[in-house]
Amino acid sequence: MSKSEEFMLRLELMALQDAYVAALDNDRLEEWPEFFADDCFYEIIPKENTSLGLPAPIMYCDNKSMMRDRVISLRNANIYSPQAYKHFLSGYEIRADKGEEIQLTANYLVVNTNQDGNSFIFQAGLYEDRVVRTPSGLRFKSKRAIFDTSKVLTLLAYPV
Amino acid sequence: MSKSEEFMLRLELMALQDAYVAALDNDRLEEWPEFFADDCFYEIIPKENTSLGLPAPIMYCDNKSMMRDRVISLRNANIYSPQAYKHFLSGYEIRADKGEEIQLTANYLVVNTNQDGNSFIFQAGLYEDRVVRTPSGLRFKSKRAIFDTSKVLTLLAYPV
Amino acid sequence: MSKSEEFMLRLELMALQDAYVAALDNDRLEEWPEFFADDCFYEIIPKENTSLGLPAPIMYCDNKSMMRDRVISLRNANIYSPQAYKHFLSGYEIRADKGEEIQLTANYLVVNTNQDGNSFIFQAGLYEDRVVRTPSGLRFKSKRAIFDTSKVLTLLAYPV
Repeated sequence: MSKSEEFMLRLELMALQDAYVAALDNDRLEEWPEFFADDCFYEIIPKENTSLGLPAPIMYCDNKSMMRDRVISLRNANIYSPQAYKHFLSGYEIRADKGEEIQLTANYLVVNTNQDGNSFIFQAGLYEDRVVRTPSGLRFKSKRAIFDTSKVLTLLAYPV
Repeated sequence: MSKSEEFMLRLELMALQDAYVAALDNDRLEEWPEFFADDCFYEIIPKENTSLGLPAPIMYCDNKSMMRDRVISLRNANIYSPQAYKHFLSGYEIRADKGEEIQLTANYLVVNTNQDGNSFIFQAGLYEDRVVRTPSGLRFKSKRAIFDTSKVLTLLAYPV
Repeated sequence: MSKSEEFMLRLELMALQDAYVAALDNDRLEEWPEFFADDCFYEIIPKENTSLGLPAPIMYCDNKSMMRDRVISLRNANIYSPQAYKHFLSGYEIRADKGEEIQLTANYLVVNTNQDGNSFIFQAGLYEDRVVRTPSGLRFKSKRAIFDTSKVLTLLAYPV
Protein backbone atom coordinates (compact mmCIF):
# COMPACT_ATOMS: atom_id res chain seq x y z
CA MET A 1 0.00 0.00 0.00
CA SER A 2 1.48 3.37 -1.01
CA LYS A 3 1.69 6.23 1.47
CA SER A 4 -1.06 8.05 -0.40
CA GLU A 5 -3.35 4.99 -0.30
CA GLU A 6 -2.59 4.59 3.40
CA PHE A 7 -3.66 8.17 4.12
CA MET A 8 -6.81 7.79 2.03
CA LEU A 9 -7.71 4.67 4.02
CA ARG A 10 -7.09 6.58 7.26
CA LEU A 11 -9.46 9.31 6.13
CA GLU A 12 -12.06 6.78 5.06
CA LEU A 13 -11.89 5.05 8.46
CA MET A 14 -12.17 8.39 10.27
CA ALA A 15 -15.24 9.16 8.15
CA LEU A 16 -16.75 5.78 9.09
CA GLN A 17 -16.22 6.36 12.82
CA ASP A 18 -17.48 9.94 12.56
CA ALA A 19 -20.67 8.79 10.84
CA TYR A 20 -21.10 6.06 13.46
CA VAL A 21 -20.88 8.39 16.46
CA ALA A 22 -22.97 11.07 14.73
CA ALA A 23 -25.79 8.53 14.25
CA LEU A 24 -25.66 7.58 17.95
CA ASP A 25 -25.36 11.11 19.28
CA ASN A 26 -28.06 12.60 17.06
CA ASP A 27 -30.71 10.07 18.08
CA ARG A 28 -30.68 8.11 14.83
CA LEU A 29 -30.37 4.83 16.68
CA GLU A 30 -32.07 2.86 13.89
CA GLU A 31 -29.00 3.47 11.72
CA TRP A 32 -26.73 1.81 14.26
CA PRO A 33 -26.99 -1.82 12.97
CA GLU A 34 -26.46 -0.61 9.39
CA PHE A 35 -22.83 0.28 10.17
CA PHE A 36 -22.12 -3.43 10.54
CA ALA A 37 -21.49 -6.23 8.03
CA ASP A 38 -24.14 -8.96 7.84
CA ASP A 39 -21.87 -11.35 9.73
CA CYS A 40 -20.82 -9.27 12.72
CA PHE A 41 -20.52 -8.89 16.44
CA TYR A 42 -20.64 -6.01 18.88
CA GLU A 43 -19.84 -5.88 22.55
CA ILE A 44 -19.22 -3.45 25.40
CA ILE A 45 -16.78 -4.98 27.83
CA PRO A 46 -14.77 -3.78 30.84
CA LYS A 47 -11.02 -3.51 30.41
CA GLU A 48 -10.14 -5.64 33.45
CA ASN A 49 -12.01 -8.57 31.92
CA THR A 50 -10.20 -8.48 28.61
CA SER A 51 -6.89 -8.46 30.48
CA LEU A 52 -7.85 -11.46 32.60
CA GLY A 53 -9.45 -13.26 29.66
CA LEU A 54 -12.78 -13.35 31.50
CA PRO A 55 -15.22 -11.62 29.20
CA ALA A 56 -18.46 -10.51 30.84
CA PRO A 57 -19.86 -7.96 28.43
CA ILE A 58 -22.55 -5.55 29.55
CA MET A 59 -23.87 -5.73 26.00
CA TYR A 60 -23.33 -8.38 23.38
CA CYS A 61 -24.82 -8.87 19.90
CA ASP A 62 -23.50 -11.45 17.44
CA ASN A 63 -25.76 -10.58 14.54
CA LYS A 64 -27.72 -7.67 13.13
CA SER A 65 -31.12 -8.97 14.27
CA MET A 66 -29.99 -8.80 17.88
CA MET A 67 -28.85 -5.26 17.25
CA ARG A 68 -32.19 -4.28 15.72
CA ASP A 69 -34.03 -5.86 18.65
CA ARG A 70 -31.91 -3.86 21.03
CA VAL A 71 -32.87 -0.65 19.24
CA ILE A 72 -36.58 -1.53 19.51
CA SER A 73 -36.18 -2.32 23.22
CA LEU A 74 -34.42 0.97 23.82
CA ARG A 75 -37.11 2.90 21.96
CA ASN A 76 -39.89 1.15 23.90
CA ALA A 77 -38.14 1.55 27.26
CA ASN A 78 -37.52 5.22 26.70
CA ILE A 79 -40.01 6.48 29.23
CA TYR A 80 -37.67 9.18 30.45
CA SER A 81 -36.65 12.32 28.63
CA PRO A 82 -33.90 11.50 26.17
CA GLN A 83 -30.41 11.97 27.54
CA ALA A 84 -27.70 13.66 25.55
CA TYR A 85 -24.50 11.81 24.68
CA LYS A 86 -21.51 13.11 22.74
CA HIS A 87 -18.65 10.92 21.54
CA PHE A 88 -15.06 12.08 21.00
CA LEU A 89 -12.45 9.92 19.26
CA SER A 90 -8.68 10.11 19.02
CA GLY A 91 -5.53 8.03 18.71
CA TYR A 92 -6.40 5.96 15.64
CA GLU A 93 -4.17 2.96 14.99
CA ILE A 94 -4.65 1.09 11.74
CA ARG A 95 -3.32 -2.29 10.68
CA ALA A 96 -4.19 -3.23 7.13
CA ASP A 97 -1.42 -5.53 5.98
CA LYS A 98 -3.46 -8.03 4.05
CA GLY A 99 -6.13 -5.79 2.60
CA GLU A 100 -8.92 -8.24 3.42
CA GLU A 101 -9.74 -6.96 6.85
CA ILE A 102 -8.65 -3.76 8.54
CA GLN A 103 -7.87 -3.71 12.24
CA LEU A 104 -8.49 -0.39 13.89
CA THR A 105 -8.25 0.89 17.44
CA ALA A 106 -9.19 4.34 18.73
CA ASN A 107 -9.71 6.04 22.07
CA TYR A 108 -13.28 7.05 22.77
CA LEU A 109 -14.79 9.40 25.30
CA VAL A 110 -18.54 9.66 25.87
CA VAL A 111 -19.78 12.78 27.61
CA ASN A 112 -23.28 12.63 29.00
CA THR A 113 -25.50 15.52 30.00
CA ASN A 114 -28.25 14.59 32.42
CA GLN A 115 -31.65 16.18 32.86
CA ASP A 116 -30.28 18.69 35.35
CA GLY A 117 -28.00 20.02 32.62
CA ASN A 118 -24.77 18.68 34.13
CA SER A 119 -22.20 17.26 31.73
CA PHE A 120 -19.84 14.56 32.96
CA ILE A 121 -17.65 11.77 31.62
CA PHE A 122 -19.92 8.81 31.05
CA GLN A 123 -17.35 6.42 29.65
CA ALA A 124 -13.74 6.40 28.45
CA GLY A 125 -12.32 3.44 26.61
CA LEU A 126 -10.86 1.89 23.50
CA TYR A 127 -12.63 0.80 20.33
CA GLU A 128 -11.08 -2.40 19.00
CA ASP A 129 -12.61 -2.81 15.56
CA ARG A 130 -12.33 -5.01 12.52
CA VAL A 131 -13.56 -3.36 9.33
CA VAL A 132 -14.36 -4.93 5.95
CA ARG A 133 -15.09 -3.45 2.57
CA THR A 134 -18.60 -4.30 1.33
CA PRO A 135 -20.50 -3.22 -1.80
CA SER A 136 -22.10 -0.48 0.38
CA GLY A 137 -18.75 0.77 1.68
CA LEU A 138 -16.73 0.11 4.84
CA ARG A 139 -18.60 -1.78 7.55
CA PHE A 140 -17.71 -3.11 11.01
CA LYS A 141 -17.24 -6.86 11.10
CA SER A 142 -16.74 -6.45 14.80
CA LYS A 143 -16.63 -3.60 17.27
CA ARG A 144 -15.55 -4.00 20.86
CA ALA A 145 -15.91 -1.04 23.17
CA ILE A 146 -13.43 -1.83 25.97
CA PHE A 147 -14.16 0.66 28.73
CA ASP A 148 -11.90 1.88 31.54
CA THR A 149 -14.73 3.41 33.55
CA SER A 150 -16.29 0.78 35.78
CA LYS A 151 -19.19 2.90 37.01
CA VAL A 152 -21.30 2.09 34.00
CA LEU A 153 -25.03 1.55 34.31
CA THR A 154 -25.94 -1.92 33.14
CA LEU A 155 -29.71 -1.55 33.06
CA LEU A 156 -30.54 -1.86 29.34
CA ALA A 157 -27.29 -0.41 28.11
CA TYR A 158 -27.21 2.04 25.23
CA PRO A 159 -24.67 1.32 22.45
CA VAL A 160 -21.46 3.34 22.51
CA MET B 1 -17.96 14.65 -6.36
CA SER B 2 -15.38 11.85 -6.54
CA LYS B 3 -14.34 9.97 -3.42
CA SER B 4 -10.96 11.67 -3.51
CA GLU B 5 -12.55 15.14 -3.78
CA GLU B 6 -14.87 14.23 -0.92
CA PHE B 7 -11.92 13.31 1.34
CA MET B 8 -10.04 16.47 0.39
CA LEU B 9 -13.11 18.52 1.33
CA ARG B 10 -13.32 16.65 4.65
CA LEU B 11 -9.70 17.50 5.40
CA GLU B 12 -10.23 21.10 4.40
CA LEU B 13 -13.24 21.40 6.72
CA MET B 14 -11.31 19.78 9.57
CA ALA B 15 -8.52 22.30 8.99
CA LEU B 16 -11.07 25.14 9.13
CA GLN B 17 -12.54 23.93 12.43
CA ASP B 18 -9.07 23.30 13.87
CA ALA B 19 -7.96 26.82 12.99
CA TYR B 20 -11.18 28.20 14.46
CA VAL B 21 -10.80 26.50 17.85
CA ALA B 22 -7.06 27.21 17.96
CA ALA B 23 -7.77 30.94 17.57
CA LEU B 24 -10.30 30.84 20.43
CA ASP B 25 -8.20 28.68 22.75
CA ASN B 26 -4.95 30.56 22.19
CA ASP B 27 -6.41 33.95 23.07
CA ARG B 28 -6.49 35.30 19.52
CA LEU B 29 -10.07 36.40 19.89
CA GLU B 30 -9.69 39.17 17.31
CA GLU B 31 -9.38 36.50 14.60
CA TRP B 32 -12.77 35.05 15.51
CA PRO B 33 -14.95 37.22 13.20
CA GLU B 34 -12.54 36.61 10.30
CA PHE B 35 -13.60 32.95 10.12
CA PHE B 36 -17.00 34.12 8.91
CA ALA B 37 -18.31 35.26 5.54
CA ASP B 38 -19.39 38.90 5.26
CA ASP B 39 -23.04 37.89 5.33
CA CYS B 40 -23.17 35.59 8.35
CA PHE B 41 -24.70 34.68 11.64
CA TYR B 42 -23.49 33.06 14.83
CA GLU B 43 -25.40 31.86 17.85
CA ILE B 44 -25.01 29.77 21.01
CA ILE B 45 -28.30 28.13 21.80
CA PRO B 46 -29.52 25.42 24.19
CA LYS B 47 -30.56 22.12 22.70
CA GLU B 48 -34.00 22.03 24.33
CA ASN B 49 -34.91 25.27 22.58
CA THR B 50 -34.02 24.08 19.12
CA SER B 51 -36.15 20.98 19.68
CA LEU B 52 -39.15 23.03 20.80
CA GLY B 53 -38.62 25.66 18.13
CA LEU B 54 -38.23 28.34 20.79
CA PRO B 55 -34.87 29.90 20.16
CA ALA B 56 -33.45 31.92 23.06
CA PRO B 57 -29.76 32.16 22.27
CA ILE B 58 -27.31 33.16 25.00
CA MET B 59 -25.31 34.84 22.24
CA TYR B 60 -26.42 36.01 18.83
CA CYS B 61 -24.62 37.94 16.09
CA ASP B 62 -26.05 38.39 12.61
CA ASN B 63 -23.13 40.27 11.09
CA LYS B 64 -19.41 40.70 11.51
CA SER B 65 -19.66 44.14 13.15
CA MET B 66 -21.63 42.62 16.02
CA MET B 67 -18.95 39.97 16.35
CA ARG B 68 -16.17 42.56 16.44
CA ASP B 69 -18.09 44.57 19.04
CA ARG B 70 -18.41 41.46 21.14
CA VAL B 71 -14.66 40.93 21.02
CA ILE B 72 -14.04 44.52 22.15
CA SER B 73 -16.54 44.11 25.01
CA LEU B 74 -14.88 40.91 26.11
CA ARG B 75 -11.44 42.50 26.03
CA ASN B 76 -12.66 45.51 28.03
CA ALA B 77 -14.57 43.39 30.55
CA ASN B 78 -11.64 41.12 31.13
CA ILE B 79 -10.83 42.34 34.62
CA TYR B 80 -10.13 38.84 35.88
CA SER B 81 -7.18 36.64 35.05
CA PRO B 82 -7.77 35.00 31.69
CA GLN B 83 -9.39 31.59 31.93
CA ALA B 84 -8.18 28.66 29.90
CA TYR B 85 -10.48 26.93 27.45
CA LYS B 86 -9.71 23.95 25.23
CA HIS B 87 -12.01 22.72 22.46
CA PHE B 88 -12.22 19.12 21.23
CA LEU B 89 -14.15 18.14 18.09
CA SER B 90 -15.33 14.82 16.73
CA GLY B 91 -18.06 13.17 14.69
CA TYR B 92 -17.96 15.32 11.56
CA GLU B 93 -20.91 14.93 9.21
CA ILE B 94 -20.71 16.68 5.86
CA ARG B 95 -23.42 17.34 3.31
CA ALA B 96 -22.20 18.97 0.14
CA ASP B 97 -24.57 17.85 -2.58
CA LYS B 98 -24.85 21.04 -4.54
CA GLY B 99 -21.38 22.45 -4.10
CA GLU B 100 -22.63 25.97 -3.35
CA GLU B 101 -22.89 25.62 0.37
CA ILE B 102 -21.54 22.90 2.64
CA GLN B 103 -23.52 21.75 5.65
CA LEU B 104 -21.41 20.45 8.46
CA THR B 105 -22.11 19.18 11.96
CA ALA B 106 -19.59 18.14 14.60
CA ASN B 107 -19.60 17.34 18.31
CA TYR B 108 -17.75 19.83 20.43
CA LEU B 109 -16.46 19.66 23.98
CA VAL B 110 -15.07 22.70 25.79
CA VAL B 111 -12.90 22.02 28.82
CA ASN B 112 -12.31 24.94 31.13
CA THR B 113 -9.61 25.31 33.74
CA ASN B 114 -10.43 27.83 36.44
CA GLN B 115 -8.06 29.93 38.48
CA ASP B 116 -7.73 27.21 41.11
CA GLY B 117 -6.27 24.93 38.45
CA ASN B 118 -9.28 22.62 38.25
CA SER B 119 -10.30 21.40 34.80
CA PHE B 120 -13.93 20.54 34.15
CA ILE B 121 -16.39 20.19 31.29
CA PHE B 122 -17.59 23.67 30.48
CA GLN B 123 -19.86 22.81 27.58
CA ALA B 124 -20.71 19.83 25.35
CA GLY B 125 -22.76 20.29 22.23
CA LEU B 126 -23.12 20.19 18.47
CA TYR B 127 -21.84 22.65 15.89
CA GLU B 128 -24.38 23.05 13.09
CA ASP B 129 -22.52 24.99 10.43
CA ARG B 130 -22.96 26.21 6.90
CA VAL B 131 -19.71 26.85 5.08
CA VAL B 132 -19.08 28.72 1.83
CA ARG B 133 -16.06 29.05 -0.40
CA THR B 134 -14.80 32.63 -0.63
CA PRO B 135 -11.76 34.14 -2.38
CA SER B 136 -9.96 33.90 1.01
CA GLY B 137 -10.87 30.25 1.51
CA LEU B 138 -13.63 28.45 3.39
CA ARG B 139 -15.67 30.65 5.72
CA PHE B 140 -18.67 30.09 8.00
CA LYS B 141 -21.88 31.51 6.59
CA SER B 142 -23.47 30.43 9.83
CA LYS B 143 -22.38 28.63 12.95
CA ARG B 144 -24.78 27.45 15.60
CA ALA B 145 -23.35 26.01 18.81
CA ILE B 146 -26.23 23.92 20.17
CA PHE B 147 -25.24 22.97 23.70
CA ASP B 148 -26.47 20.08 25.86
CA THR B 149 -25.08 21.52 29.08
CA SER B 150 -27.61 23.87 30.63
CA LYS B 151 -25.36 25.17 33.42
CA VAL B 152 -23.78 27.77 31.16
CA LEU B 153 -22.89 31.19 32.48
CA THR B 154 -24.75 33.84 30.52
CA LEU B 155 -22.97 36.92 31.81
CA LEU B 156 -21.18 38.26 28.72
CA ALA B 157 -20.70 34.89 27.07
CA TYR B 158 -17.45 33.98 25.37
CA PRO B 159 -17.74 32.50 21.85
CA VAL B 160 -17.39 28.72 21.56
CA MET C 1 3.62 23.75 -0.90
CA SER C 2 0.48 22.94 -2.89
CA LYS C 3 -2.88 22.55 -1.18
CA SER C 4 -2.77 18.82 -1.76
CA GLU C 5 0.73 18.52 -0.25
CA GLU C 6 -0.43 20.63 2.69
CA PHE C 7 -3.34 18.27 3.38
CA MET C 8 -1.11 15.21 3.06
CA LEU C 9 1.27 16.72 5.61
CA ARG C 10 -1.67 17.42 7.91
CA LEU C 11 -2.75 13.78 7.70
CA GLU C 12 0.80 12.59 8.27
CA LEU C 13 1.12 14.76 11.38
CA MET C 14 -2.24 13.53 12.68
CA ALA C 15 -1.03 9.96 12.15
CA LEU C 16 2.15 10.75 14.11
CA GLN C 17 0.22 12.19 17.06
CA ASP C 18 -2.28 9.34 16.95
CA ALA C 19 0.50 6.76 17.07
CA TYR C 20 2.17 8.67 19.91
CA VAL C 21 -0.90 8.76 22.15
CA ALA C 22 -1.84 5.17 21.27
CA ALA C 23 1.59 3.99 22.47
CA LEU C 24 1.17 5.88 25.77
CA ASP C 25 -2.44 4.85 26.36
CA ASN C 26 -1.95 1.18 25.49
CA ASP C 27 0.92 0.66 27.92
CA ARG C 28 3.67 0.52 25.30
CA LEU C 29 5.76 3.03 27.19
CA GLU C 30 9.02 1.65 25.78
CA GLU C 31 8.02 3.03 22.36
CA TRP C 32 7.74 6.55 23.75
CA PRO C 33 11.40 7.66 23.19
CA GLU C 34 11.32 6.24 19.66
CA PHE C 35 8.90 8.97 18.55
CA PHE C 36 11.70 11.48 19.02
CA ALA C 37 14.69 12.47 16.88
CA ASP C 38 18.14 11.66 18.27
CA ASP C 39 18.70 15.28 19.17
CA CYS C 40 15.52 16.15 21.06
CA PHE C 41 13.86 17.50 24.13
CA TYR C 42 10.64 16.86 25.97
CA GLU C 43 8.99 18.72 28.80
CA ILE C 44 5.74 19.03 30.72
CA ILE C 45 5.32 22.57 31.90
CA PRO C 46 2.53 24.64 33.46
CA LYS C 47 0.99 27.36 31.30
CA GLU C 48 1.48 30.17 33.83
CA ASN C 49 5.23 29.58 33.73
CA THR C 50 5.54 29.82 29.98
CA SER C 51 3.63 33.12 30.05
CA LEU C 52 5.88 34.58 32.74
CA GLY C 53 9.03 33.16 31.17
CA LEU C 54 9.77 31.17 34.33
CA PRO C 55 9.97 27.58 33.22
CA ALA C 56 9.73 25.00 36.01
CA PRO C 57 8.87 21.79 34.21
CA ILE C 58 7.46 18.85 36.15
CA MET C 59 9.30 16.65 33.69
CA TYR C 60 12.24 17.45 31.47
CA CYS C 61 14.38 15.28 29.17
CA ASP C 62 16.88 16.74 26.72
CA ASN C 63 17.96 13.48 25.10
CA LYS C 64 16.66 10.01 24.42
CA SER C 65 18.72 8.33 27.14
CA MET C 66 16.96 10.41 29.77
CA MET C 67 13.67 9.37 28.24
CA ARG C 68 14.60 5.69 28.32
CA ASP C 69 15.74 6.04 31.96
CA ARG C 70 12.41 7.58 32.81
CA VAL C 71 10.59 4.62 31.27
CA ILE C 72 12.69 2.18 33.33
CA SER C 73 12.01 4.19 36.51
CA LEU C 74 8.30 4.20 35.80
CA ARG C 75 8.29 0.45 35.18
CA ASN C 76 10.23 -0.20 38.39
CA ALA C 77 8.12 2.17 40.47
CA ASN C 78 4.89 0.69 39.25
CA ILE C 79 3.95 -1.02 42.48
CA TYR C 80 0.30 -0.08 42.10
CA SER C 81 -2.20 -1.45 39.66
CA PRO C 82 -1.74 0.27 36.33
CA GLN C 83 -3.93 3.29 35.85
CA ALA C 84 -5.80 3.94 32.64
CA TYR C 85 -5.15 7.08 30.63
CA LYS C 86 -6.78 8.15 27.38
CA HIS C 87 -5.60 11.09 25.27
CA PHE C 88 -7.81 13.18 22.99
CA LEU C 89 -6.40 15.72 20.52
CA SER C 90 -7.94 18.53 18.53
CA GLY C 91 -7.27 21.95 17.06
CA TYR C 92 -4.14 21.20 15.04
CA GLU C 93 -2.21 24.22 13.80
CA ILE C 94 0.65 23.62 11.42
CA ARG C 95 3.41 25.95 10.30
CA ALA C 96 5.73 24.48 7.70
CA ASP C 97 6.99 27.39 5.69
CA LYS C 98 10.57 26.34 5.21
CA GLY C 99 10.17 22.59 4.92
CA GLU C 100 13.09 21.85 7.25
CA GLU C 101 11.16 21.77 10.48
CA ILE C 102 7.44 21.68 11.06
CA GLN C 103 5.89 23.58 13.93
CA LEU C 104 2.72 22.04 15.27
CA THR C 105 0.36 22.85 18.10
CA ALA C 106 -2.67 20.87 19.23
CA ASN C 107 -5.02 20.79 22.20
CA TYR C 108 -4.75 17.69 24.34
CA LEU C 109 -7.02 16.23 26.97
CA VAL C 110 -5.98 13.32 29.17
CA VAL C 111 -8.76 11.39 30.89
CA ASN C 112 -7.72 9.17 33.75
CA THR C 113 -9.68 6.34 35.29
CA ASN C 114 -8.61 5.46 38.81
CA GLN C 115 -8.80 2.12 40.56
CA ASP C 116 -12.32 2.84 41.80
CA GLY C 117 -13.45 3.06 38.19
CA ASN C 118 -14.04 6.81 38.19
CA SER C 119 -13.02 8.73 35.07
CA PHE C 120 -12.00 12.36 35.38
CA ILE C 121 -10.02 15.01 33.55
CA PHE C 122 -6.39 14.45 34.46
CA GLN C 123 -4.87 17.19 32.36
CA ALA C 124 -5.86 19.64 29.63
CA GLY C 125 -3.27 21.57 27.72
CA LEU C 126 -1.47 22.40 24.50
CA TYR C 127 1.20 20.42 22.68
CA GLU C 128 3.78 22.76 21.19
CA ASP C 129 5.85 20.53 18.95
CA ARG C 130 8.64 20.75 16.41
CA VAL C 131 8.74 17.85 13.98
CA VAL C 132 11.49 16.80 11.58
CA ARG C 133 11.61 14.31 8.76
CA THR C 134 14.09 11.48 9.41
CA PRO C 135 14.92 8.34 7.40
CA SER C 136 12.47 6.49 9.71
CA GLY C 137 9.67 9.02 9.15
CA LEU C 138 8.44 12.05 11.07
CA ARG C 139 9.90 12.43 14.56
CA PHE C 140 9.57 15.02 17.34
CA LYS C 141 12.59 17.26 17.66
CA SER C 142 10.84 18.75 20.65
CA LYS C 143 7.54 18.32 22.40
CA ARG C 144 6.29 20.64 25.09
CA ALA C 145 3.11 19.71 26.93
CA ILE C 146 1.92 23.05 28.32
CA PHE C 147 -0.85 22.23 30.76
CA ASP C 148 -3.69 24.42 32.03
CA THR C 149 -4.56 22.14 34.91
CA SER C 150 -2.43 22.96 37.93
CA LYS C 151 -3.56 20.05 40.09
CA VAL C 152 -1.06 17.69 38.50
CA LEU C 153 0.71 15.08 40.58
CA THR C 154 4.45 15.63 40.40
CA LEU C 155 5.60 12.40 42.03
CA LEU C 156 7.42 10.61 39.21
CA ALA C 157 5.33 12.05 36.42
CA TYR C 158 4.13 9.92 33.55
CA PRO C 159 4.70 11.32 30.04
CA VAL C 160 1.69 12.90 28.34
